[in-house]
Amino acid sequence: MKFRRSERLIDMTHYLLEHPRQLVPLTFFAERYGSAKSSISEDLAIVRETFEQRGIGTLQTVPGAAGGVKYFSKVSQQDARIFIHELCQQIEKPERLLPGGYLYMTDLLGNPQTTHKVGKLLAAAYAETDIDVIMTMATKGIPIAHAVATHLNVPVVIVRRDSKVTEGPTVSINYVSGSSKRIETMVLSKRSLKEGSKVLIVDDFMKAGGTVNGMRSLLREFNGTVAGIAVLVEAEHVEERLVDDYLSLVKLQNVDAKENEITVVEGNYFSKGKGFLPHS
Amino acid sequence: MKFRRSERLIDMTHYLLEHPRQLVPLTFFAERYGSAKSSISEDLAIVRETFEQRGIGTLQTVPGAAGGVKYFSKVSQQDARIFIHELCQQIEKPERLLPGGYLYMTDLLGNPQTTHKVGKLLAAAYAETDIDVIMTMATKGIPIAHAVATHLNVPVVIVRRDSKVTEGPTVSINYVSGSSKRIETMVLSKRSLKEGSKVLIVDDFMKAGGTVNGMRSLLREFNGTVAGIAVLVEAEHVEERLVDDYLSLVKLQNVDAKENEITVVEGNYFSKGKGFLPHS
Repeated sequence: MKFRRSERLIDMTHYLLEHPRQLVPLTFFAERYGSAKSSISEDLAIVRETFEQRGIGTLQTVPGAAGGVKYFSKVSQQDARIFIHELCQQIEKPERLLPGGYLYMTDLLGNPQTTHKVGKLLAAAYAETDIDVIMTMATKGIPIAHAVATHLNVPVVIVRRDSKVTEGPTVSINYVSGSSKRIETMVLSKRSLKEGSKVLIVDDFMKAGGTVNGMRSLLREFNGTVAGIAVLVEAEHVEERLVDDYLSLVKLQNVDAKENEITVVEGNYFSKGKGFLPHS
Repeated sequence: MKFRRSERLIDMTHYLLEHPRQLVPLTFFAERYGSAKSSISEDLAIVRETFEQRGIGTLQTVPGAAGGVKYFSKVSQQDARIFIHELCQQIEKPERLLPGGYLYMTDLLGNPQTTHKVGKLLAAAYAETDIDVIMTMATKGIPIAHAVATHLNVPVVIVRRDSKVTEGPTVSINYVSGSSKRIETMVLSKRSLKEGSKVLIVDDFMKAGGTVNGMRSLLREFNGTVAGIAVLVEAEHVEERLVDDYLSLVKLQNVDAKENEITVVEGNYFSKGKGFLPHS
């Protein structure tokens, strides 16, 4: 069965979007559509141009016999700015304020359109980084971790506060919570993480960084390395930050429980400035 | 700026895939591409044909002034069969067996390609059902619930075993665990679920159905209704099933801890037979 160009472009777009960072040989598409490799190359040039123009991502061509094409999920600076601006406005709503100065974020973390976009932005910054797996802490980090994982095409491992019978043997560590200075425990299923993995740590919220730091210690027990740290929200005015090199979409600048006011600004996403599409 | 058909098809495909079950007016695309509505109609006919042929989904045209097009994520029977067959083979691996007859599934639930496909299959069966929100139980149901939510374009609410300060006021119920007959507690943030919502319950595993039944009771406290129950794995040989009308991808037929053997077969997904693309 032969496919017309229009059909090839639609199916290719779907296929590439579902397989980010995966090398797809040109012969795969040529056989899938019964087309010459030269036609496939032309198709891919059109896909790349449109992906870049519309802020979807980019294609990288790997030449040679073992070559092919790789799709990277990316964003334009402009789209990222608009989305982060909207996020700030959403998080600033005074009705989010809970006793103790905590913020209600459950609606945002439960909205698949929001987490998908958060995942896309965070993933874009690590598109070229060598990452084997994403690590997060149960339970609020899970939706964002999975969203990032979808765009980077790597698995997620989940660290818990306590061990579960369905996880098999576990490794546990104690760590000091950054803000409350309490001793806490975290646990990871032993077989969920291969020795020596390169790990992107993802979480919804970072205050002093105690939890992230705990994950780093846990990672050491698996001889893993931290490939990056990415959070949705970081809190400012932290006396003693335990974590330095991280990426954040937004920054919680001030929570005034008395005046019922929340101030949220851009995180360090743009100053780190990785992962944007060219000319965006 | 004018767009060629090829560019429109690529961008439309991406846009529709990211906005399932959302009515997109033809004028939206016409303005986006500076094209006539007649050209957009032709584009959409090509997209629909290719989506159906390649097992991606379908488009529904809503006529009239308030009309437009809606994308539904669907599967072909054949793709679903192949995927469920692979799932069975993966889950049957004897190294999954844990003490007490539990199965290690963390790797599958942590793989975004797997959860995306599981989500697509489960969502396809409910594509035409009126659903406001997906409910799941922390923590293992979360990745599947979010995957289903992505394809149905609805939010996720997460039921927990205990309340958290970041969730605000909660509603809690006691329920009887189906298999162990113990009294357990589950908790849902009050503001996470609107009164009277139509809810699709999603979970990774169902034995006697105690947890699902608990979620049903919890839902009653919010005057909600159950729009469906969908699980990845159901266990067979349950003396007293508390839940009748559910959808499962695979069925755990037998776990022989002594012989180190696991038997997994198709669930009731095909006998329910909803959501498949025509002629598939």
